[in-house]
Amino acid sequence: MEKIPYKIYLSENEIPKQWYNVRADMKNKPAPLLNPATLKPMTLEELSQVFCEELAKQELDDTTPYIDIPDEIRDFYKMYRPSPLVRAYCLEKALDTPAKIYYKFEGNNTSGSHKLNSAIAQAYYAKKQGLKGVTTETGAGQWGTALSMACAYLGLDCKVFMVKCSYEQKPFRREVMRTYGADVTPSPSDTTEVGRKILAEHPGTTGSLGCAISEAVEVAVKSEGYRYVLGSVLSQVLLHQTVIGLEAKAALDKYGVKPDMIIGCAGGGSNLGGLVSPFMGEKLRGEKDYEIIAVEPASCPSLTRGKYAYDFCDTGMVCPLAKMYTLGSGFIPSANHAGGLRYHGMSSVLSQLYDDGLMTARSVEQTAVFAAAQQFARIEGILPAPESSHAIRVAIDEALKCKETGEEKTILFGLTGTGYFDMVAYQRFNDGQMSDHIPTDEELKAGFDGMPKVDL
Amino acid sequence: MEKIPYKIYLSENEIPKQWYNVRADMKNKPAPLLNPATLKPMTLEELSQVFCEELAKQELDDTTPYIDIPDEIRDFYKMYRPSPLVRAYCLEKALDTPAKIYYKFEGNNTSGSHKLNSAIAQAYYAKKQGLKGVTTETGAGQWGTALSMACAYLGLDCKVFMVKCSYEQKPFRREVMRTYGADVTPSPSDTTEVGRKILAEHPGTTGSLGCAISEAVEVAVKSEGYRYVLGSVLSQVLLHQTVIGLEAKAALDKYGVKPDMIIGCAGGGSNLGGLVSPFMGEKLRGEKDYEIIAVEPASCPSLTRGKYAYDFCDTGMVCPLAKMYTLGSGFIPSANHAGGLRYHGMSSVLSQLYDDGLMTARSVEQTAVFAAAQQFARIEGILPAPESSHAIRVAIDEALKCKETGEEKTILFGLTGTGYFDMVAYQRFNDGQMSDHIPTDEELKAGFDGMPKVDL
Repeated sequence: MEKIPYKIYLSENEIPKQWYNVRADMKNKPAPLLNPATLKPMTLEELSQVFCEELAKQELDDTTPYIDIPDEIRDFYKMYRPSPLVRAYCLEKALDTPAKIYYKFEGNNTSGSHKLNSAIAQAYYAKKQGLKGVTTETGAGQWGTALSMACAYLGLDCKVFMVKCSYEQKPFRREVMRTYGADVTPSPSDTTEVGRKILAEHPGTTGSLGCAISEAVEVAVKSEGYRYVLGSVLSQVLLHQTVIGLEAKAALDKYGVKPDMIIGCAGGGSNLGGLVSPFMGEKLRGEKDYEIIAVEPASCPSLTRGKYAYDFCDTGMVCPLAKMYTLGSGFIPSANHAGGLRYHGMSSVLSQLYDDGLMTARSVEQTAVFAAAQQFARIEGILPAPESSHAIRVAIDEALKCKETGEEKTILFGLTGTGYFDMVAYQRFNDGQMSDHIPTDEELKAGFDGMPKVDL
Repeated sequence: MEKIPYKIYLSENEIPKQWYNVRADMKNKPAPLLNPATLKPMTLEELSQVFCEELAKQELDDTTPYIDIPDEIRDFYKMYRPSPLVRAYCLEKALDTPAKIYYKFEGNNTSGSHKLNSAIAQAYYAKKQGLKGVTTETGAGQWGTALSMACAYLGLDCKVFMVKCSYEQKPFRREVMRTYGADVTPSPSDTTEVGRKILAEHPGTTGSLGCAISEAVEVAVKSEGYRYVLGSVLSQVLLHQTVIGLEAKAALDKYGVKPDMIIGCAGGGSNLGGLVSPFMGEKLRGEKDYEIIAVEPASCPSLTRGKYAYDFCDTGMVCPLAKMYTLGSGFIPSANHAGGLRYHGMSSVLSQLYDDGLMTARSVEQTAVFAAAQQFARIEGILPAPESSHAIRVAIDEALKCKETGEEKTILFGLTGTGYFDMVAYQRFNDGQMSDHIPTDEELKAGFDGMPKVDL
């Protein structure tokens, strides 16, 4: 057989023409979003006050298996897609493993991550609806950067609420967004009601994703011609991100390769959901089995230690309630936690699949994650994002198990992005100053105590 | 005819198997390096005390047109090459120009630039010679990062002298190098004789490339099992960088496209030389004419305002003398100059070609460069390095001229890298705080006064 190249590139006309909606193949559908006032499922009309109408439709659609990708979005995708599927020959050799390791690399674009796949889709539907602009939140900054890029391309206004500690500690991310013309505000801010309330209650706070979401939603709802967009968690985002998995599968299919194991890092679930969806579809339809592993930080363990229940999506409790594996909307990872993957809840789609035993989850500590990141960088050349390095850690662990057992497993993992804006964390690791923190049960309890009291 | 895609990717087996040595086709050869003590051409033996033997041979070889690329180097190239040749459809549309714009994008690797092409070659020959490690200097940091990556891959020790102001102002670049295992020292340092001398003479100095070169050469010459490597200027570096031009030409040839105009930024000349070499070869052999434009900063104008003469390559005057367009080894761009392209001299090969009228040069001011960078980022998605943006500026200017004249010129330019580590400069531009500086004749005279007094 032809030797598999280092990188399998598809051609432009092999960029998927449809997103795959895994919900259509799920027997147990993810639970609906609830209106926090009525506790009834959100209607299209209600959702459309926050989201663009087309996106609200996608959010509610759990029956259509394939949804067309508009040509304008595919044209934008052509600027950085198809992304390479890399055979990690160098890593395999360095680990001396019989495992065959592949990774889908989504970092070859200025946002530095997969986030652009959904940013352009959401910005496109906003533009098509004739809106002036969109609002959003960003933590580590990949999503904000991606959305700024998409809005610059389409000529949309972009207002980003950036978690205050990131705004201050990651000024370069902020400047990338400004270079793309976005308006970036540190959150919590005094520009919103909810921001002022949070500041009054917690004067010294450096913010959280949950706060920033509340502020962004408030501005969207109160401003003429604006809607709110979100970079993860939502089912529409997972839908857009399926270009990752569809391309990965198409590339592997060219060489007749079927992965035994698919590994992805999981914060809100956008990358993992996008990567695994087409494979999960085969599994749900009984066509092929795959071992699917979500990897999360031990310091923010929503799948491995969270509760599966309805919870608030934001700190200000202005958003719909979602049923998900959650640590409680008040949960904030300890201060020594570096990088993203810090959201308190997990995508409803993935939560349901996990609850149904269709995938497993593992938590890893960050010093082990950065050790994997450094090893990977030196061997494979790419400097990975801390988030992506969670998947690298488990991929390396599994490859080393294969070395022991002699199994020739085929491992596919998602390399979601690059770490160029995470050098403060890398420096801490290089200097031996990085530490781990596993929340105590007591610490987790505080988060759980903030969850809705009603039984839903 | 088939529509030209956004990105023309070659396959792995289309990575060049040989570098092209443009000197072989030059009627007027570049002047030889001179021994600073004897003022005689450097011999292979003399050069081999500083450089690896194979690289010293390449430096002296001005007759062999094609030099084989070892398989080990091609294997490394496969990790990030072939690099995409992009058709700038979005930019063309935004400029409303009949020009057809292409760029060869070399930023899709962790070094963030084309520098890796020569770093792996130089590290490979060092390894093959059985050396322990290499020493080098770095300014903005791309070269140091690239060399660190190559050395990590091959298991070589890597000692980098980083210009002190960059070491302090670009801590993240430093951390990338450390992540790849390099030993990074701010220059001038007290670890070398020449560093101590420079510090004694200029106590407050924040360093320069010329100082850092002197320190790196001293350490290489005095340490057992070490040699010095350099990221630009040298003919061997231009040779390695021809993979850029060879791939660009192969990609264009697939669609029968011949550029009318080839544009590249020029500091020491490595990217420009690599990009234009195969086209220049056709021009030298009388097969096809191309307009070739070097773009340099107005604040460091070696081609447009320098002298063509023998000069020192470094501040400590420990290196061979080179005949080149130069501003004098004591010339340092004004403090407001952002980014690279700050070396006082230009590659001997390009200097000779320029002197022979085979290419032209243009200087541009940095606010105009950053305006082009921002425009390009918003339209084409990629956040360009300040250095690369010099080429973008002139490409846009030329495309706008085509709009006026109606000419459908085909423009190819080199997009050498990304600007992720240059956000301090972008911030200055975003805040309207960036300024320009064109050196006065008086300022240039100070540099010229430091050149060798002898007539060579």
